[in-house]
Amino acid sequence: MEKGRREDVLEAYPCFLAIPPEDWAQAEMLSLPPSTLHPIREGHRFQHALFVVEGRIRIYRTTAEGREITLYRVGRGQCCVLMMASILGDVPYEASVAIEQEVNVLLLPVPVFTNWMAAHVSLRRFIYQQFTDRMLKVTQLLESVSFQPMPVRIAAYLLHAAASGDSNAIRITHEQLAIDLGTAREVVSRTLKKMAREGALSLSRGTITIVNPGYLQEICQPQ
Amino acid sequence: MEKGRREDVLEAYPCFLAIPPEDWAQAEMLSLPPSTLHPIREGHRFQHALFVVEGRIRIYRTTAEGREITLYRVGRGQCCVLMMASILGDVPYEASVAIEQEVNVLLLPVPVFTNWMAAHVSLRRFIYQQFTDRMLKVTQLLESVSFQPMPVRIAAYLLHAAASGDSNAIRITHEQLAIDLGTAREVVSRTLKKMAREGALSLSRGTITIVNPGYLQEICQPQ
Repeated sequence: MEKGRREDVLEAYPCFLAIPPEDWAQAEMLSLPPSTLHPIREGHRFQHALFVVEGRIRIYRTTAEGREITLYRVGRGQCCVLMMASILGDVPYEASVAIEQEVNVLLLPVPVFTNWMAAHVSLRRFIYQQFTDRMLKVTQLLESVSFQPMPVRIAAYLLHAAASGDSNAIRITHEQLAIDLGTAREVVSRTLKKMAREGALSLSRGTITIVNPGYLQEICQPQ
Repeated sequence: MEKGRREDVLEAYPCFLAIPPEDWAQAEMLSLPPSTLHPIREGHRFQHALFVVEGRIRIYRTTAEGREITLYRVGRGQCCVLMMASILGDVPYEASVAIEQEVNVLLLPVPVFTNWMAAHVSLRRFIYQQFTDRMLKVTQLLESVSFQPMPVRIAAYLLHAAASGDSNAIRITHEQLAIDLGTAREVVSRTLKKMAREGALSLSRGTITIVNPGYLQEICQPQ
């Protein structure tokens, strides 16, 4: 892999900094558009370890009733922990992949990757920290889903998004908000409409605008 | 470790069957009663990999407000995936351990364990399959918490418990039921009391008896 592309990879994944330049000969970059159908499905055996350098993929499973459950998303600088478990444990992949935004992906042949894992503590640390982070993130989401009523969670989400984005107009669909909060779109839409009727929000296609931040802050107060 | 104890370990963890008897010299067994206070806390660096041969431990985190969040439980034949991530990634442990039932634990010095991991595919498969199973279990729980109303989840749980236990009297506390369903005890108690008022259940200390299974089955029908 040429130097310019390698530098791009190292910027996204500093865990690879210890790998000497000559070891990158077998690494490749691949671009995949969002229209790529079923790039990887349950039961897949990986020939390469994949690292997202640009774009975003979604990891999901399909239920017996045919509904998709999103497990998590993987973007620049992250890794798919279920892919790692499949590669390192030499077992089939237990999920499927969809491409959400055109991705540039680093491909490392599995034997190269496992040699690097064995030789470099920085890479091991990164991979296992990703396991821990993902597990804790899912658990925290579970905690928040289980213990807080939906209006509280939506109010907190919107206030946080407005504060991080410097605007009371938040560009997000009801679908995306539902996925981020781990609930059904209908539940989100119903709650948002109630808040809009009470003058707290105004809703338009793809955008939620906070009209009365005090209303949302009050909802978020512990009872 | 003497042969009898080793056989007990191998019965709980067939993944160790490939390890030759002479390699077990540095393995130890330890018994810990439930009264053991704070055996392992966040920030811990493991000197040994632990495998539960009898009993059960609970893995939890403490929130900023001092409330404990149970992440999962580990019993005979299972492993704590966050401990594995800490050992294999050479990073501090991100959780705490409480002993729920007196445990007999196999202790393997970390260098012995990582050598075994490198040498034996059966052990690697087991550990990484545990990562996958735990991640999918948490996600499925999240799915069920997010998308099904609480009475449906409780009805399904009780019918399943009665069917697996061959009795309509299910020995479980409201607290334990809440933990298994990932919700608050008050929510469980409120729902159970409503079901009891409507003649579906009778409640006594530590036992829930299904009086009218048809009522529960009806709740579980898709709308």
